[in-house]
Amino acid sequence: MAFELTILGSNSAVPAYGRHLSAQVVTLGSESFLIDCGEGTQMQMMKYQIKMHKINRIFISHLHGDHIFGLIGLLMTYGLNGREKPLHIYSPKGLQPILNIQLQRPLTYPLHFHTTDPEKFALLFENETAEVYSIPLVHGVPCHGFLFAEKQAAANMRKDKIKEYKIPYQQIPAIKAGADYVTETGLVIPHSELTLPAAAPCKFAYCSDTMYSEAIVPLIEGVDLLYHEATFMHDLLHQAQSRMHSTAYQAASIAKQANVKRLIIGHFSSRYQDLTPLKKEAQTVFKATSLAIEGEKIKVKN
Amino acid sequence: MAFELTILGSNSAVPAYGRHLSAQVVTLGSESFLIDCGEGTQMQMMKYQIKMHKINRIFISHLHGDHIFGLIGLLMTYGLNGREKPLHIYSPKGLQPILNIQLQRPLTYPLHFHTTDPEKFALLFENETAEVYSIPLVHGVPCHGFLFAEKQAAANMRKDKIKEYKIPYQQIPAIKAGADYVTETGLVIPHSELTLPAAAPCKFAYCSDTMYSEAIVPLIEGVDLLYHEATFMHDLLHQAQSRMHSTAYQAASIAKQANVKRLIIGHFSSRYQDLTPLKKEAQTVFKATSLAIEGEKIKVKN
Repeated sequence: MAFELTILGSNSAVPAYGRHLSAQVVTLGSESFLIDCGEGTQMQMMKYQIKMHKINRIFISHLHGDHIFGLIGLLMTYGLNGREKPLHIYSPKGLQPILNIQLQRPLTYPLHFHTTDPEKFALLFENETAEVYSIPLVHGVPCHGFLFAEKQAAANMRKDKIKEYKIPYQQIPAIKAGADYVTETGLVIPHSELTLPAAAPCKFAYCSDTMYSEAIVPLIEGVDLLYHEATFMHDLLHQAQSRMHSTAYQAASIAKQANVKRLIIGHFSSRYQDLTPLKKEAQTVFKATSLAIEGEKIKVKN
Repeated sequence: MAFELTILGSNSAVPAYGRHLSAQVVTLGSESFLIDCGEGTQMQMMKYQIKMHKINRIFISHLHGDHIFGLIGLLMTYGLNGREKPLHIYSPKGLQPILNIQLQRPLTYPLHFHTTDPEKFALLFENETAEVYSIPLVHGVPCHGFLFAEKQAAANMRKDKIKEYKIPYQQIPAIKAGADYVTETGLVIPHSELTLPAAAPCKFAYCSDTMYSEAIVPLIEGVDLLYHEATFMHDLLHQAQSRMHSTAYQAASIAKQANVKRLIIGHFSSRYQDLTPLKKEAQTVFKATSLAIEGEKIKVKN
């Protein structure tokens, strides 16, 4: 199953050096999800050939302008293109009036707002293949990240056991889902003997904007890919703290504590034209760190 | 004196084929003026090295999203960059609440809203070198274009006449401004004999969005450069009329009737990937037509 991330914007607050404002697209199975929507996101989607019509759900981390000012243009474009499919937006409260005042004509499609609770780790959405959770973050306004996870697949049936116990095929789905098997003679064969566990579900966590918070570590434990903001380098720790952002060192520290497989840092301050020092700083703590590069497609599942 | 236009966006409604939404910068003398501000305008300014801090006045033609959705991002960026100089926005009524709901922190600079009357040809602003007028247009919502004009320079003093009548230098400014000269013997030498008329002021007219309207012809008579919207080709005249836009043929017809020197057409529909046919259609009526190309700097004054 496809599980891929495309970075559309990597800068914080204002665009700079050709870097754009926060937006990412996660493709998981047949659906694509948009995370945050800074100004210019729809242009970035076109530039990087994102299939806009595949997006039915938009997840907004918080209501700072650099994460939402591209929303109204995207909603209008969907309308002008005659979209009919419903669109769902998940965000902390307060977004709807900001968009409503700017909507200039009735939309051609239903628009549903889902108000999230930024203080809770909660399931926001699930379909047959994916689950999306909120991850409470610590920022100047109510803010959460998101955990995108494959659904836990059913266990794999052992063929040798089917043969051994002559298990009828009709019973296999139930056994894969967790049931034991009872033979004709009444013998109970436990689920664990009949199956091999499925691979662990693949996971991607988006953690921006946030100051350093160890509270998220258990929530993102072992994820395959972590995007963590790294607005500043660690020599500006004081500034990072006062603005409730993280340093590259801190992002890497979170990645290490959570035993994630790979880390991408982004949401860079405009003071940095060259980003190499941020990567190097993070890599002193967590080697598998890379920079968020706009347009790059990153496989969450290899 | 510099008088130059930079096109930042040339498409209508939605971005397409790398074309952006309406925005132009006019540099006249020491100041730059922004006309309209579609989503992504601040990125376009950076891309084309527009000096953002030189802009103190923004002129908005009307409140459709493709002309205003970039404003809030620009205002925030000015704030984040610590701007202190006042910023003035001229627009039909209704803009202020749209921006106010999105302003997330006190701005670092005074922001002044000037409400225009889209039905009037009126002086909106003047300084020592420039005048800006509104041009009533015909569109689905209250809408006006803008006429940017150099101030009429004072007449040129004839040196031979200074000598002939022994005119004291102190009196020259008054004569250049229109006064006659009275000699010591009481003889009145008329202004017209003493001076040569100054060159006609150079002018640029921005007419978008609008359906075909001959009412604007006398207001833009003889301008050096006319930007007129040409959303459609003339085979879609019916569509142009119902959406209150113009065709390339109509834009050229206005240019011809108004005896303008050059015409630029823009605000293209996304149905046109190749714009050459629009240019060719306009040129059948008005030869000196060119397409709006983003990033191009066009000298209004040669």
